[in-house]
Amino acid sequence: MKKAWAWLIIVAACVAVSLVRADEGMWPLNRVPTREIQHRYGTTLTPDWLAHARLSSVRLANGCSGSFVSSTGLVMTNYHCVVGCVEALSTPAQNVQRDGFVAATDADERRCPGLEVNQLTEITDVTARVREATKSATGESFRKARDSAFAAIERECTTGDEVRCDVVTLYRGGRYDLYKSRRYQDVRLVFVPEFDVGFFGGDPDNFMFPRYNLDAAFLRVYERGVPLQASYWFDWSTHGAAAGDLVFVTGHPGSTSRLYTVSQLEFDRDVSLPANLMYLSELRGLLMEFRRRGPEEERIADAQLVFIENSLKVGRGEFAALATPALMDRKRAEETALKRSVSARRDLQRHFGSAWDEVQAAVQRRREAWPRSTALARLGGSRLVGYAQTLVRLADEQAKPNEQRLSEFRDAALPAVRQRLGAARPVNRTLETVQLAFILRHIRERLGLDDPAVKALLGKRSPDEVAIAAMAKTELDTADARTTLMSGERAGVEASSDPLIKLARAVDPFAREARLRLENLDATIERASGLIAQARFAVSGESVYPDATFTLRLTFGTVKGWTENGREVPPFTTLGGLFDRHTGSPPFALPRRWLDRQNRVKLDTRFNLVADTDIIGGNSGSPLLDRDGRIVGLVFDGNIHSIGGEYWFDQARNRTVAVDSRGLREALGAVYDADRVLKELSAR
Amino acid sequence: MKKAWAWLIIVAACVAVSLVRADEGMWPLNRVPTREIQHRYGTTLTPDWLAHARLSSVRLANGCSGSFVSSTGLVMTNYHCVVGCVEALSTPAQNVQRDGFVAATDADERRCPGLEVNQLTEITDVTARVREATKSATGESFRKARDSAFAAIERECTTGDEVRCDVVTLYRGGRYDLYKSRRYQDVRLVFVPEFDVGFFGGDPDNFMFPRYNLDAAFLRVYERGVPLQASYWFDWSTHGAAAGDLVFVTGHPGSTSRLYTVSQLEFDRDVSLPANLMYLSELRGLLMEFRRRGPEEERIADAQLVFIENSLKVGRGEFAALATPALMDRKRAEETALKRSVSARRDLQRHFGSAWDEVQAAVQRRREAWPRSTALARLGGSRLVGYAQTLVRLADEQAKPNEQRLSEFRDAALPAVRQRLGAARPVNRTLETVQLAFILRHIRERLGLDDPAVKALLGKRSPDEVAIAAMAKTELDTADARTTLMSGERAGVEASSDPLIKLARAVDPFAREARLRLENLDATIERASGLIAQARFAVSGESVYPDATFTLRLTFGTVKGWTENGREVPPFTTLGGLFDRHTGSPPFALPRRWLDRQNRVKLDTRFNLVADTDIIGGNSGSPLLDRDGRIVGLVFDGNIHSIGGEYWFDQARNRTVAVDSRGLREALGAVYDADRVLKELSAR
Repeated sequence: MKKAWAWLIIVAACVAVSLVRADEGMWPLNRVPTREIQHRYGTTLTPDWLAHARLSSVRLANGCSGSFVSSTGLVMTNYHCVVGCVEALSTPAQNVQRDGFVAATDADERRCPGLEVNQLTEITDVTARVREATKSATGESFRKARDSAFAAIERECTTGDEVRCDVVTLYRGGRYDLYKSRRYQDVRLVFVPEFDVGFFGGDPDNFMFPRYNLDAAFLRVYERGVPLQASYWFDWSTHGAAAGDLVFVTGHPGSTSRLYTVSQLEFDRDVSLPANLMYLSELRGLLMEFRRRGPEEERIADAQLVFIENSLKVGRGEFAALATPALMDRKRAEETALKRSVSARRDLQRHFGSAWDEVQAAVQRRREAWPRSTALARLGGSRLVGYAQTLVRLADEQAKPNEQRLSEFRDAALPAVRQRLGAARPVNRTLETVQLAFILRHIRERLGLDDPAVKALLGKRSPDEVAIAAMAKTELDTADARTTLMSGERAGVEASSDPLIKLARAVDPFAREARLRLENLDATIERASGLIAQARFAVSGESVYPDATFTLRLTFGTVKGWTENGREVPPFTTLGGLFDRHTGSPPFALPRRWLDRQNRVKLDTRFNLVADTDIIGGNSGSPLLDRDGRIVGLVFDGNIHSIGGEYWFDQARNRTVAVDSRGLREALGAVYDADRVLKELSAR
Repeated sequence: MKKAWAWLIIVAACVAVSLVRADEGMWPLNRVPTREIQHRYGTTLTPDWLAHARLSSVRLANGCSGSFVSSTGLVMTNYHCVVGCVEALSTPAQNVQRDGFVAATDADERRCPGLEVNQLTEITDVTARVREATKSATGESFRKARDSAFAAIERECTTGDEVRCDVVTLYRGGRYDLYKSRRYQDVRLVFVPEFDVGFFGGDPDNFMFPRYNLDAAFLRVYERGVPLQASYWFDWSTHGAAAGDLVFVTGHPGSTSRLYTVSQLEFDRDVSLPANLMYLSELRGLLMEFRRRGPEEERIADAQLVFIENSLKVGRGEFAALATPALMDRKRAEETALKRSVSARRDLQRHFGSAWDEVQAAVQRRREAWPRSTALARLGGSRLVGYAQTLVRLADEQAKPNEQRLSEFRDAALPAVRQRLGAARPVNRTLETVQLAFILRHIRERLGLDDPAVKALLGKRSPDEVAIAAMAKTELDTADARTTLMSGERAGVEASSDPLIKLARAVDPFAREARLRLENLDATIERASGLIAQARFAVSGESVYPDATFTLRLTFGTVKGWTENGREVPPFTTLGGLFDRHTGSPPFALPRRWLDRQNRVKLDTRFNLVADTDIIGGNSGSPLLDRDGRIVGLVFDGNIHSIGGEYWFDQARNRTVAVDSRGLREALGAVYDADRVLKELSAR
């Protein structure tokens, strides 16, 4: 199975060890190593098992995972995956964020604006077609030929708004697969706990274990105005998982970089990670102070801080991994070993031998291009500016043939774009003003005063002046204004006097140019990385898994703790531990309801657990399944060592963190009286 | 002269080039390469010239440089070097920060609280004595033996509070010199311009050129209540400098790391720089939002932001240097070349051959120890907590023999400590509360909830709760309260119920332990680095300069611009350019007085200039001198390429930025009517 990796690691370590196979790999559903699993665990994943798992799993288009858990479209996911919905539905009168939400009837279920759910229906290999379209191309010509091929394939596949088709680049260019999904856009909130328990422990406990967090939510998919009649869903395990049990996770890991060359890893370490960490740190400081302005500001800022602090912890962990000499030494050794195998065979050397140098040369140019492109892209960090940019580009891109458009405006993606623009979401102008001023100042700082893009944005005015003036007069905070601009002709956007539309138009030529420069370099890298992937296939066969791409994957492993500084960390916590950890001060303050009902709760119920399944961000909301495909947990996090999973899998310490199915049921019953949800879950 | 470096560079580049000697080096006043200067520029620096330069130069103990410029103790330095004084003297009634300050008579000159000025009177080599004391010691024993030796030497040298004695570690442990200085603690403000012109261009223009900034201030040293009768001062050049002129800078470069081993450079890149950049970025974001609370908050926050943003720019530049593959490759090649020379001679190999591995092993342990020690040390970032910590430690340390104390509490340093504690400086409790909460949160984040130091600081309370409670009740914001605690017995501090004293006492054992762990590792590194320095002396002679140590140095070069992206940057700007750059919005807004008097100003007067002298932070306030030792400028910055000067000197692009002496005179006369100051400057 994993001979390729195992072999490389052995070469790197220069020691002879027995072939210890790792529970490693995020496997596409058409590449699951069933024989390996059969061999190691005695469990056969039949084609039916896999099809059922695929069709019972869903992707939340906002970056999460979930699963159908009833015949009437009930979807289980994490609290933190629906925090945007919670924010949108919260008002001073009904504060869903503070108080949680339990729908008493279908009629009480409330639509989450802009939330889209996808169910994977088919995977088709389109590598040959993409290769044919891109052969002998490189850089910009490669990018254009590839994008044209993608657009044509997706257009042929897309038979209506309810179908979503995405060509996915696997193995960083080694394979291209077409992923066809069923698209659902009417998704409603059924249950969320209070923020204080759905995010218990807050940033301090994030990525930590032992853990005590009810990071759970239930949604329902509607079709034509009524609950979906689902054909596939996961049953609930009656007894839950025990230490040592084989478990599976289906879900959508967002992105990993395990197949990066050393020059790409150095780019992350030297350029992108430090810049992003500084940017996010400054924004975090700003929001931590903004939230002191008052309760409403606190609520709005906190919703953003959840994501910023998560990104910071992830970024710090990734940087720490790359800043560890041992890891980089190992990566260098692996690369050297593969290069050596290639150079030992003349045919491989001729086809693939120069690929690493090609990557390195493009990465060197990327070091120069990335900062400007990235700084300008930060403008979308203001939600209102993001709307303006989308409207400006939508108008421009719709006028072009499908295959020449920026990727996010191809036909396949337009329904999601339109839904986002048309969805009513509350916007706080004060925060938008502060954020835009911050972003403008940042751009000026990184590009310098004399950059033409900075002059287009600021003229002789200060970042504050520009932000205040633009945010005072824009009308893009209403869905109506956006819908009008979105629905009209291109001339409507061109003629608009909305200050944010004007700002977006002024900077767009510079932002596009900077972005395309980067994308051309990325195309060069993708082409060369494709060669490296083919070289790896030639040397080690196809039994390696591709980097994560926010497409459905299956991973397997067992319920188990790990050893931290010589101390064993057991794999389970209990609900009693949650009460013990309560201090009364956020983020360790339990809601009133929990304190009032403490005596109803069975305190020895298992609450959170860990397993050595191989997951990463994007897997949030994934079901944790037993060998019979029944739900034993709800994945919501990894431990601190899982962050380095971006670059490698550390089986000894990398752990998935989940809400135990038993703790979740206990909370729904004893604390929330959510009998309606409980009854829907079919336990077997 | 610089054969050692030139040779190493040639080895690294593997090309034969003619020996282009660089205007490189920050030379201690007893090691100035006079023959080299004579050879290259035809100018002889006599012992008298050097003694005059030494005694006319001063160090501001807060981290800056300056120079005597009159017979009555007038000192020239930068605006940004006295920003603490300006802040302390500013009140809503007399806003020195906003309006500037021109003393009309001696009686109007106002004392700067806590400002100390040092004049270097003698340098003595004490290497043999320190070596004898530390021989065969390592780690903790080396640290203790060295500190005892330092303390004994300093105690013998210190003959009164007006004498300051510091043993300085040069060449990272290759030499030890005793620096004896005259100490002045009564320093008064004579002139500062408005913040808006003394910091014109703000953070965006910081480290940039062309530049237009009147970053100038005049102080006066008093002795026994009257202006100092100075025996040494620099005259003013009547005609200023021209392009190509030989120039000198005397001043106190704070710190460089050019002699670091590769493992030390990797530590900076991987650990300390990223962590510091994230910390400062977050604090910056917080202050940028805090300043929006109101005009008073804006004033206080801005005074801090000047330093934070400066540190951020420096840190980013340093990181960028280390993240440049070419620089690290060069450093690796230099190290390899030196190691090879050592291994080629059996005696050298035996004495010095293992030093690099010793450094590397200690650095590896430093990677583990640094984060905790540094996080705890951040507590001193709150001024009031800093007072509390100093009081707690002062009480503890005073009870110990001099040579066993923490270095900053040795007898030689105590006058400065006492002056800082006793100086009345306004403190804003709101900002202190916000900052303490921020720091506590940061510590909890980095150390984790279960760290004993975190438990000592927070108990079960949140960072906000602890900060609010402590800042509401502390009395350490008054100089009286601090003086009482400082003057009393140790029991007084131990019995104090001041919440900040209690906080400082609670965390002190942990902070001390973490710090000493780091200092023991640093001692191991210093010992091994001393061996590397001796190896370098053995291979290349002593004609290399030591890393900067905030001791007096002389550097030489010429007035010249550089080439940026193929474009020539000329070495001078004019006062006319200042008016052209005025936009009306800070930091590009000229004060009213300048706009009103624009027609009086000779606009073609040279205003700022650059030279290729080798300086770094700490040189701020240094005089720029012509070959006759007359003032032609006031150093206040370097260009953006000067930041990498931390690790290497790039003669092609590294430039010193100074206020031209002519522009400074023109401003004093035409804008400020500061005839009293002008008359005092003796031009020749």
